[in-house]
Amino acid sequence: MKPILVGGQPLATGRSAVCAPLVGRTREALLAEAAALAALGPDLIEWRVDFFEGIAQAQQVLDVAAALRRAAPGLPILFTRRSVREGGEPIALDEPGVVAIYAAVCAAAAVDMVDFEMANAPADVQAVREAAQRHGVGLVLSFHDFQETPPLEVLNQRFRQAEALGADVAKVAVMPRGMADVLTLLRATLQSSEALSIPLVSMAMGAEGAVSRVCGGAFGSALSFGVGVAPSAPGQLPLAGLKAALALLQPAHVR
Amino acid sequence: MKPILVGGQPLATGRSAVCAPLVGRTREALLAEAAALAALGPDLIEWRVDFFEGIAQAQQVLDVAAALRRAAPGLPILFTRRSVREGGEPIALDEPGVVAIYAAVCAAAAVDMVDFEMANAPADVQAVREAAQRHGVGLVLSFHDFQETPPLEVLNQRFRQAEALGADVAKVAVMPRGMADVLTLLRATLQSSEALSIPLVSMAMGAEGAVSRVCGGAFGSALSFGVGVAPSAPGQLPLAGLKAALALLQPAHVR
Repeated sequence: MKPILVGGQPLATGRSAVCAPLVGRTREALLAEAAALAALGPDLIEWRVDFFEGIAQAQQVLDVAAALRRAAPGLPILFTRRSVREGGEPIALDEPGVVAIYAAVCAAAAVDMVDFEMANAPADVQAVREAAQRHGVGLVLSFHDFQETPPLEVLNQRFRQAEALGADVAKVAVMPRGMADVLTLLRATLQSSEALSIPLVSMAMGAEGAVSRVCGGAFGSALSFGVGVAPSAPGQLPLAGLKAALALLQPAHVR
Repeated sequence: MKPILVGGQPLATGRSAVCAPLVGRTREALLAEAAALAALGPDLIEWRVDFFEGIAQAQQVLDVAAALRRAAPGLPILFTRRSVREGGEPIALDEPGVVAIYAAVCAAAAVDMVDFEMANAPADVQAVREAAQRHGVGLVLSFHDFQETPPLEVLNQRFRQAEALGADVAKVAVMPRGMADVLTLLRATLQSSEALSIPLVSMAMGAEGAVSRVCGGAFGSALSFGVGVAPSAPGQLPLAGLKAALALLQPAHVR
């Protein structure tokens, strides 16, 4: 598994990194959530800014990002607007506005990484990529299917597409309809992690997919999302237990 | 996943059961090991009798089995002679002697289950099955490949063969040569657990296969072997951590 690097350092060594989502709607809720998460020891926190009431005001977003750094000192921050189409919250902001917020967050180096969906308009993907690269912010290009699990070759194509579009990290999340779909997601992760040169993140969502959040690292997924205060997607496991399970699978523990 | 029943009761509910191996060479070592294991809370202990110096003396075997029950009160015992061909220790006993020991152990109801390899002589498999059935002892029919992972259809055939031969539980353990083999083992487990009416046990061994010991339950494996005092096969994980990881994947913990 290729680790995700922030500032040239891997988020975790010997296991998948764990990421806790921040889903507060207000500044106060977010800061309380960040402090609570920091105590749980994730390797990364993801600010799901589509939950934030102030998303349409760039200055509010920048202020909260700066406050999150103080509330969770030393913890890298991933900044994510998840679209409604791919499982996010409705927001009072059009797409040019979203791209402008990403550009402002990157220009201020207010976060360490941003997640942008590869299905967004090509010009928007290019704009976000350029803003991220110019300011040393990592770029996750992502694909989510909350309805089903596309075939193996489609999943591999999504990973390849992220790399071709200039991502630093490729992320694919799918909904399984049966355990065979979980195996398809793991097989695509394995094949793409061998084929591509960038780190991958993958998960099967929902109750049936929960096992992929523990075992995905063995097949090449560099990051697993766990619940600190509140989940951001179905199937997430409690952060502390998740981290312990991932640590258990480190080679040093295997007899 | 179909649970393994002992005395009509499942070994574990909501997760795969965990089994700790006993590999002591002497009566004293075995009793100390059993007491230490009991404190770790496995659902089952497996006495790997091929490690036992006294295996050729039926009365010694019966005496130790009775002492193990007292050393680990309430813990079901699985009795296993693993052959050298399938990864076990050399023993000073021929095959008729082995069958006689199994028959004596069953006749005394000294253990709750016995594991016998399906590759043994058909007449021996029949004799062990009849002894087990007559005395209410559960029968695991097993297949191990310490060299490689046979193709999917061969693995499914091994599970089917165990059921056809009258097993109460079918066990398949393989050595992966790469993570794709681990997925093949999991896929066979999933397909066979849907096709057969008896519980299955499966694992990919070694460091690469360790992940299957945690995630196999999601694909239909009813039992996972963990290390209490000493491992009995490569890739086993520490028992306490294994049990916690399996508990984490119970549906109640998934958000």
